[in-house]
Amino acid sequence: MGRRSLLLLLLAFLTPGASSPVSPSLRAPSSLPWSTSFRSRPTITLKYSIRYIQQKVDHFGFNIDRTFKQRYLIADNYWKEDGGSILFYTGNEGDIIWFCNNTDSRHLNFLTTEQALADFAKLIKYLKRTIPGARNQPVIALGGSYGGMLAAWFRMKYPHLVVGALASSAPIWQFNNLVPCDTFMKIVTTDFGRSGPNCSESIRRSWDAISRLAKKGPGLRWLSEALHLCTPLTKWQDVQHLKDWISETWVNLAMVDYPYESNFLQPLPAWPVKVVCRYFKYYNVPDTLMVQNVFQALNVYYNYSGQAKCLNVSETATSSLGVLGWSYQACTEMVMPTCSDGVDDMFEPHSWNMKEYSDDCFKQWGVRPRPSWIPTMYGGKNISSHTNIIFSNGELDPWSGGGVTKDITDTLLAIVIPNGAHHLDLRASNALDPVSVQLTRALEVKYMKQWISDFYVRLRKMN
Amino acid sequence: MGRRSLLLLLLAFLTPGASSPVSPSLRAPSSLPWSTSFRSRPTITLKYSIRYIQQKVDHFGFNIDRTFKQRYLIADNYWKEDGGSILFYTGNEGDIIWFCNNTDSRHLNFLTTEQALADFAKLIKYLKRTIPGARNQPVIALGGSYGGMLAAWFRMKYPHLVVGALASSAPIWQFNNLVPCDTFMKIVTTDFGRSGPNCSESIRRSWDAISRLAKKGPGLRWLSEALHLCTPLTKWQDVQHLKDWISETWVNLAMVDYPYESNFLQPLPAWPVKVVCRYFKYYNVPDTLMVQNVFQALNVYYNYSGQAKCLNVSETATSSLGVLGWSYQACTEMVMPTCSDGVDDMFEPHSWNMKEYSDDCFKQWGVRPRPSWIPTMYGGKNISSHTNIIFSNGELDPWSGGGVTKDITDTLLAIVIPNGAHHLDLRASNALDPVSVQLTRALEVKYMKQWISDFYVRLRKMN
Repeated sequence: MGRRSLLLLLLAFLTPGASSPVSPSLRAPSSLPWSTSFRSRPTITLKYSIRYIQQKVDHFGFNIDRTFKQRYLIADNYWKEDGGSILFYTGNEGDIIWFCNNTDSRHLNFLTTEQALADFAKLIKYLKRTIPGARNQPVIALGGSYGGMLAAWFRMKYPHLVVGALASSAPIWQFNNLVPCDTFMKIVTTDFGRSGPNCSESIRRSWDAISRLAKKGPGLRWLSEALHLCTPLTKWQDVQHLKDWISETWVNLAMVDYPYESNFLQPLPAWPVKVVCRYFKYYNVPDTLMVQNVFQALNVYYNYSGQAKCLNVSETATSSLGVLGWSYQACTEMVMPTCSDGVDDMFEPHSWNMKEYSDDCFKQWGVRPRPSWIPTMYGGKNISSHTNIIFSNGELDPWSGGGVTKDITDTLLAIVIPNGAHHLDLRASNALDPVSVQLTRALEVKYMKQWISDFYVRLRKMN
Repeated sequence: MGRRSLLLLLLAFLTPGASSPVSPSLRAPSSLPWSTSFRSRPTITLKYSIRYIQQKVDHFGFNIDRTFKQRYLIADNYWKEDGGSILFYTGNEGDIIWFCNNTDSRHLNFLTTEQALADFAKLIKYLKRTIPGARNQPVIALGGSYGGMLAAWFRMKYPHLVVGALASSAPIWQFNNLVPCDTFMKIVTTDFGRSGPNCSESIRRSWDAISRLAKKGPGLRWLSEALHLCTPLTKWQDVQHLKDWISETWVNLAMVDYPYESNFLQPLPAWPVKVVCRYFKYYNVPDTLMVQNVFQALNVYYNYSGQAKCLNVSETATSSLGVLGWSYQACTEMVMPTCSDGVDDMFEPHSWNMKEYSDDCFKQWGVRPRPSWIPTMYGGKNISSHTNIIFSNGELDPWSGGGVTKDITDTLLAIVIPNGAHHLDLRASNALDPVSVQLTRALEVKYMKQWISDFYVRLRKMN
């Protein structure tokens, strides 16, 4: 992506927005893990300087005039002061350091997408005012996952500040029944189904195998040992928790099913779902063997490095830093219903129960979610009056089910990447990249160049 | 405006938004009076029913889950359930009854344009969900003055909910130096200048006449009696207050300089500025005569009905209900700088002093204004990516200086109404209407019909 004409990459973090996945007490199907490229160890070295801007804690009210220091990164080694352009990376839900020091949920009141977009707006105006040459340059928002939603929404709400947005793997429709709640788990299942013979069917049958074993005399102990759990199972609820954790693992694997070794949520081999599926070739096996296969498969995800001494059921990603922030967002605005039926997908049946979800949120945070708010605010499926947004989605990515995968107008464009996982297009290019993602990136650059040249044409006309 | 094809007129009041003009302690030049058609006694009978919707007090935070009952009006006698359309009137800053019971300024934290637009969004979604036939109908926002700004901003931020907006006399650029601060007072001066010989020059000279008299022995007493003030002047500051009040009166007169008798801010004759100017034909007159002429002129505004026994320096409009609400808004988001120099305008020189203004706000409300926020949020002059907004402005209206008076694109249209005062086009049609306003209304209806027909074309394509 580091092309000549697109060069000042501004990485804005510490947007009010925090990390995933959700804390165990809220492990509802909806609260599925996100990813954040922030958490990955970078495979290329990106040169940037770290800076800070004083931001209002509350952009939409005036009682609280307090500010916080928002961190942002400037990577301007390729930037042209004269006639250049600016890429504005819209961050993500991760690494929200201040959150650790602010566990009082009252302070989370300002952890909303609206405040995040307002932060972006103030930051861009500040940068244009203070960086020589930046004032009359086009800015393009880009981001992946939650950050992709922010990028798209930023273009929708602040089109005067960005000429366009690249929203990669941004499930802006995974809200309030805009898509069926079972879409997400179906896509995970399809990924596993096509990654090895009998793979999804074996997993579908593994749940009952686990249940049967758990019910037998020393079953919990046997399971704990067969799965090398750090904390042994002691009661029936632990088994449900275990299954949820395993489900999340398969979901995560589908998200990060990249064509090369990566270190995103975990260090992983190339095409990790294929590697996992090697252990699920046979489904007509004794329960004990099935569980041992599950362990081997989990081991691909949790112990590719060979360092893990046991598996920790309370974590699915490398770090739990910021987990709570996303949980709060999922309990307020970012309510993204998912469900499964065990027939069209390989998971145990879980219906979506808004009442229960809301009660859990109230228990944990003292707030109740407003599931219809995001479509009211950002338009739901009725977004055709906006312009200049690219929605890219990897076909393997379960979040693509809530994404825009068909062109809406000739400036609201959808790109689907066959064999692509979660925001593959935003990752550094790799020799093992499928042609599809190479073409995707070329298209994205082409569209962005068009927005930039349109901007300069307008600018010249005005002068 | 009640044409066949545009028929369900929804009047939303009690939006967080309150009335003008500002309280005397904040009588800075910027805090000039608004008007609200709400305050006027209706000249035609509009049939509507009064309804209520439960609204969140805070749409953008989740700590406060409290709701309030928002009043709205439904006028559906001309509405077609099948294939019709909906006009959504975006209210104004007036008649904010709850405000009277909520003088604690902490509660005003949610009195912002963003919350008002969110209220509109929820209300429209609610109406579409609950009124049979309304779901698949286009909605058009319309409003005048502050309500006109809300209408325009609503189309910009929620284009999925309204197909277009008519923003009448909406000074969306009267912020943060988007227009010179002296524009407003210059327009007032021009109005007076063209309404009678020597009119503006006489007024320009009246200030010194007042000052000279005030400095003489029993001058304050003489002035109090000559001007029939309810509360006599007792000190020098009272004289400044008096002049501010007189200035506001001339401003108000320019705003409501309608071609027929009206009762908007006050009961008034047709072309009231002309009537006032009859008393300002001669500027080379003794100070005492000048002040007596000022009294006669003020009397046109404050005593057209002949009922007033004295003039009350603390009021410029019929009712002060809600005055405080606008003052709060002017101290937070709605900072609209004005100034005068006494040379290009007929007022005493007043520079715009942001520091002083902010300190006054802090003294009165405990908040500090954020003057650059509105342009950051709503785009300032860079709004060309939006569509389907009509900006109409009366040439006589001082607020037109901060309005959009030239087409921006072929769907962001400006209409200037010669001989038109503050949102004359939104008033009921009158036999004395100038042709210009008749043509304006015809154009507005034509554009709205186009938006409606475009909507139905899209709808048919989708089905």
